[in-house]
Amino acid sequence: MKKTTILINCPDKKGIIATVTNFIVAKKGNTTYVEQHVDNELEEFFMRLDCEFDQDEEKLTLFKESFDKHVASNYNMHWEMYNTDKKPKMALFVSKYDHCLYDILGRYASGELQVKIPIIISNHKDLEPIAIAFNVPFKHIPVNRDNKVEAEAEQLKALKDHKVDFIALARYMQILSSDFVNQFPNKIINIHHSFLPAFPGAKPYHSAYERGVKIIGATSHYVTSDLDEGPIIEQEVVRVSHIHNVQDFILKGRDLEKIVLSRAIKHHIERKVLVYNNKTVIFS
Amino acid sequence: MKKTTILINCPDKKGIIATVTNFIVAKKGNTTYVEQHVDNELEEFFMRLDCEFDQDEEKLTLFKESFDKHVASNYNMHWEMYNTDKKPKMALFVSKYDHCLYDILGRYASGELQVKIPIIISNHKDLEPIAIAFNVPFKHIPVNRDNKVEAEAEQLKALKDHKVDFIALARYMQILSSDFVNQFPNKIINIHHSFLPAFPGAKPYHSAYERGVKIIGATSHYVTSDLDEGPIIEQEVVRVSHIHNVQDFILKGRDLEKIVLSRAIKHHIERKVLVYNNKTVIFS
Amino acid sequence: MKKTTILINCPDKKGIIATVTNFIVAKKGNTTYVEQHVDNELEEFFMRLDCEFDQDEEKLTLFKESFDKHVASNYNMHWEMYNTDKKPKMALFVSKYDHCLYDILGRYASGELQVKIPIIISNHKDLEPIAIAFNVPFKHIPVNRDNKVEAEAEQLKALKDHKVDFIALARYMQILSSDFVNQFPNKIINIHHSFLPAFPGAKPYHSAYERGVKIIGATSHYVTSDLDEGPIIEQEVVRVSHIHNVQDFILKGRDLEKIVLSRAIKHHIERKVLVYNNKTVIFS
Amino acid sequence: MKKTTILINCPDKKGIIATVTNFIVAKKGNTTYVEQHVDNELEEFFMRLDCEFDQDEEKLTLFKESFDKHVASNYNMHWEMYNTDKKPKMALFVSKYDHCLYDILGRYASGELQVKIPIIISNHKDLEPIAIAFNVPFKHIPVNRDNKVEAEAEQLKALKDHKVDFIALARYMQILSSDFVNQFPNKIINIHHSFLPAFPGAKPYHSAYERGVKIIGATSHYVTSDLDEGPIIEQEVVRVSHIHNVQDFILKGRDLEKIVLSRAIKHHIERKVLVYNNKTVIFS
Repeated sequence: MKKTTILINCPDKKGIIATVTNFIVAKKGNTTYVEQHVDNELEEFFMRLDCEFDQDEEKLTLFKESFDKHVASNYNMHWEMYNTDKKPKMALFVSKYDHCLYDILGRYASGELQVKIPIIISNHKDLEPIAIAFNVPFKHIPVNRDNKVEAEAEQLKALKDHKVDFIALARYMQILSSDFVNQFPNKIINIHHSFLPAFPGAKPYHSAYERGVKIIGATSHYVTSDLDEGPIIEQEVVRVSHIHNVQDFILKGRDLEKIVLSRAIKHHIERKVLVYNNKTVIFS
Repeated sequence: MKKTTILINCPDKKGIIATVTNFIVAKKGNTTYVEQHVDNELEEFFMRLDCEFDQDEEKLTLFKESFDKHVASNYNMHWEMYNTDKKPKMALFVSKYDHCLYDILGRYASGELQVKIPIIISNHKDLEPIAIAFNVPFKHIPVNRDNKVEAEAEQLKALKDHKVDFIALARYMQILSSDFVNQFPNKIINIHHSFLPAFPGAKPYHSAYERGVKIIGATSHYVTSDLDEGPIIEQEVVRVSHIHNVQDFILKGRDLEKIVLSRAIKHHIERKVLVYNNKTVIFS
Repeated sequence: MKKTTILINCPDKKGIIATVTNFIVAKKGNTTYVEQHVDNELEEFFMRLDCEFDQDEEKLTLFKESFDKHVASNYNMHWEMYNTDKKPKMALFVSKYDHCLYDILGRYASGELQVKIPIIISNHKDLEPIAIAFNVPFKHIPVNRDNKVEAEAEQLKALKDHKVDFIALARYMQILSSDFVNQFPNKIINIHHSFLPAFPGAKPYHSAYERGVKIIGATSHYVTSDLDEGPIIEQEVVRVSHIHNVQDFILKGRDLEKIVLSRAIKHHIERKVLVYNNKTVIFS
Repeated sequence: MKKTTILINCPDKKGIIATVTNFIVAKKGNTTYVEQHVDNELEEFFMRLDCEFDQDEEKLTLFKESFDKHVASNYNMHWEMYNTDKKPKMALFVSKYDHCLYDILGRYASGELQVKIPIIISNHKDLEPIAIAFNVPFKHIPVNRDNKVEAEAEQLKALKDHKVDFIALARYMQILSSDFVNQFPNKIINIHHSFLPAFPGAKPYHSAYERGVKIIGATSHYVTSDLDEGPIIEQEVVRVSHIHNVQDFILKGRDLEKIVLSRAIKHHIERKVLVYNNKTVIFS
């Protein structure tokens, strides 16, 4: 029994749900779960289906071709189909902060994240011992003003070699070039240490402290070539008060960052995220 | 164009989604929204569909008969169909506390709640001026140890006279008899002033204070003959600390109570609640 | 027994706490509660004391003079002393939205807010019936492009006539002039319908929807001549998702707005707010 | 300059604040921070002071004697004085779950927790590699029905050998005997995986799922001989819905457990907790 997840979006139209579920039945599949959303303003339709097929890989390829021809093209669909049993491969990019790395690797070790982590890439050597402790390959690729192009080439090669499906920037402190980003559309997950769009850029905790806010947050988003402007996947907040100084903000923020990033990674792994119009639909 | 909402639950089985959406297509309907849930442990299937039909009332009655015969019976379904354009009728039961009443009537007046409120019933006269200010009929039915049976008979008559669909107990301080409750299964919404199942019964804020909890809550649930044990619809919490005394708990709790009760009422009005096994499925 | 609250801020220095509490003892007072804060970065000291004096009004005036001379001047203090038993007078400014007005008046009627409300001022007549229902004087002062100066003069006269201590803008949709604002420093409380500094200005819910945030908020702040830039008193947030449209954001936001504004008003009434450097210290 | 923290509680009475702050001045100390609380119902006074003394250890011993004689005895005080610069020693008790251990050790390694961890004690060997990775001594003391007395004796010996000040039970799955508990009053911090007092005992996530709650929580408390009844230090909650099964509850709960336990440990380390009447005062 092959388990698959299908993600669809297309202009909203009558009959999509029946058409799709029927087609799956006709192809000897069973829809075990369907979730759907319509953006009435944009008149766009979104759907996520979990299906089971009594079929081997080859026949699924035929299903794909057939679905493209008889369904997707009629509705002008953008659609994707995933083998649910196959764990995607995630690369971690880190620098010096360790809290997100610990959190992700702890969940990875305990089996909470249905993912493979073939490689951790860092511009510093500081976190290598953690990678070793968790038995994950660590690659040190220094980045500076002069070698950025070469460094990214080396990063890309490593990602290719390990057949990486997506990247999580676990407080990676370098800005990726547009060239790099464009090779992984909606496949690079970043954690920003503020409640975006408040306090974009560097030192958000300092800015939040300066402004005297009573709540701080963290935001996980897909990276686009517009810094801090990519589609938001998840956010979380925590209350602060006048008794907390910038250092307290940073410590409280760490707890947010790791939780928010891990939640976003999980959504991505479970194919629960659809990006449209620089926003995300997060299926439940 | 008739808009309807269909709620279904039945033992989980292959092909339900396709069968139902197909049947709607065959009857010239269009499914505009579907949401679904499977309880894998209990092997129970739940679905909520928004549909549009190019039909008059009479033909919808035929649809119902046909659906019953050709679909529902095959899957052993429990199902309901609502005319979405028709506002349900809600009775409010109150005693002396006014915060929930103000909140509900404020939302009612501003058009936030798609409901009709034909009657407010109270065992005290205190809140009558509020009913008058909002132009809602108010009926005073005193309740005491000796007249409980008669009082409930009078309440039931008023509910019948006004063709009430469901009841919200907005801090109504009398316990309804099992006889009364059983006439409105999953149709009486209560607000309990604690985070159930913690602190059931009377004076929950006092108990919470005594125990030294750091968070207090409120719970909205359908009333069953087991006091405080009915299916939970919504809960919310707020942080407290040693600086707050019982009176502070009560004040903070009021803000929870009104928000939680109004949310539960809204879910109910929008037919987003399915009760199964003393728990609720809340569609989004 | 006269109950008073003393609020102090001054450059941080050794011995302030002992000096102040001693002075109060020497003047036959008893400090029943003290709360204190030091901003280590700015080296500024903040303190709030609840005291009881066995004295009449006249002797308290002598206390003030003496404290000024022997304590405050030595430490370069900014300080204020309030008669705790005397309820401050609050004016409400409203326009057409009623949810904050209902919330405040509901709390006022139930005795939750230790304040007097001598006047509600509005640029529209829509909410007059609510004022009447709650028995609070309502004054309609239309505002338009051409009469702004005259309108503010009329508002100021009404505030003076009623000896108003502070103002709450309960979704008042006009921008007050700098002249007006400067007459009430840290005495005009506004509710902004976003999680400032995200989405300042008009239509924040539309902007939040556009950006695809997963959490929205509301912010209560003192009004300064810099629009939406005044010291933040309180903030609260609520989770949203792709299923919510702008209208849902607005409805969810209303619940935040009323709660946050009422909390801020309460802090102000209880003299728990000290403003310094465009930020607030909120004593507990 | 010696930094100290003084914690005081006693029956409420006039003049305590002035008396204490004066005495410190008289002994050439400077009170840098004071926080205070009065439980008006119980008429009990609580205070926490940060002080600096230009003194060596010996003179501080004299201060203690003098304070006892001239201040504490007059007010019937229970009081404690801590050298703020000295890190307390914490033992960790664990079993098989690793998430709390990772979280605590991660914070420990990053310098967030001002504590020493001389020993991790476990009834299983599973987590030894984590202890090794973080360079913390690990002692395996198996516990079963027959050897409980001996095992606890061995635990106590290890605690004594390492001069342990307090214990954190990081999901330690054995119940400690009353004899053991009574040797560490208000010095054993437990994390319970529910929002106490809801769902005490084992399998709280299963019970919460069964009851259909919409919010789950975790509770950190001091261990007393009454299981799950000790004074609550910290609680946190997270929203769940019908889509989550027991396993999801457990995963979400893990994130709560580690955050809540770490917060409680931090409060304890910073001497911000005062226990009275089976409740906690948590200074800010």
